[in-house]
Amino acid sequence: MSPAFSVPGGAMKLTTLCYIERGGEYLMMHRVLKENDCNHDKWIGIGGKFEPGESPHECIRREAMEETGLRLGGLRFRGIVTFVSDEWETEYMHLFTCSEFSGEPRECSEGVLEWIPKARLMELPMWEGDAIFLRLLDTDRPFFSLKLVYRGEALVCAELDGERIR
Amino acid sequence: MSPAFSVPGGAMKLTTLCYIERGGEYLMMHRVLKENDCNHDKWIGIGGKFEPGESPHECIRREAMEETGLRLGGLRFRGIVTFVSDEWETEYMHLFTCSEFSGEPRECSEGVLEWIPKARLMELPMWEGDAIFLRLLDTDRPFFSLKLVYRGEALVCAELDGERIR
Repeated sequence: MSPAFSVPGGAMKLTTLCYIERGGEYLMMHRVLKENDCNHDKWIGIGGKFEPGESPHECIRREAMEETGLRLGGLRFRGIVTFVSDEWETEYMHLFTCSEFSGEPRECSEGVLEWIPKARLMELPMWEGDAIFLRLLDTDRPFFSLKLVYRGEALVCAELDGERIR
Repeated sequence: MSPAFSVPGGAMKLTTLCYIERGGEYLMMHRVLKENDCNHDKWIGIGGKFEPGESPHECIRREAMEETGLRLGGLRFRGIVTFVSDEWETEYMHLFTCSEFSGEPRECSEGVLEWIPKARLMELPMWEGDAIFLRLLDTDRPFFSLKLVYRGEALVCAELDGERIR
């Protein structure tokens, strides 16, 4: 393990992220409303932190309801992303897609929700590594484990299922 | 979410567990050597706690080397198990199987290693919920998320991919 792969201290958080899909579009959130947000001004999917004792499915269903008012069905658990950074605590993000849901999106206090055609996703301001997992989601690849190591906003290393890819 | 599904406080740990396979047998550890071990006297696979910044693959490779001396290749990441207990902190266990490895098992300070035929696994003292994921591993089921809720040693609830199964 190279020193770039580890950070001092054991602080970590568990989160979920879901790309909710409707006819070739994802429901994206433009994170412009929340203060002290490590995703400020970026576009990401729906999700948030685990509450005590929650499973990944429970967390994403609760977060989706809180952030969008949508009730998710037919979740697909697609991968885990391990984010290591010299600025933030290590994050284990549980990644889902979902094309079955009920309800209509409502306003959210953390950002502005918008349906974005998948073909236009790469034009949006987002983390460099997000492009890697968005491409993986676009294939029928089985469950994956992706590790992304950042220095500031720069992606310095990426590993897929334990093998270095960047 | 029923009250049985959550515990007070946010204490949690991330772990890995791998069933290393060789011709119809798993390499099992009889946990008899470690003090204050929540798995004391039970038989389990190989694994342990994440170190800071580790991905699931990095953790299981390191743990397997430390506990058995084996170098793992061709890991299959099979599922995540969320353990909730009224006695222990919540545990997120990342479950692997592996049938490609090099080296010979050596002695371990945490327990006694033994190759056990899969057909005999259920005769061994183990946690009640382990039988559920061992059966899932025995099928070709895609990645799963299993939640197991214990009161003491009794399994009071099990959910598979967000649906209650017990």
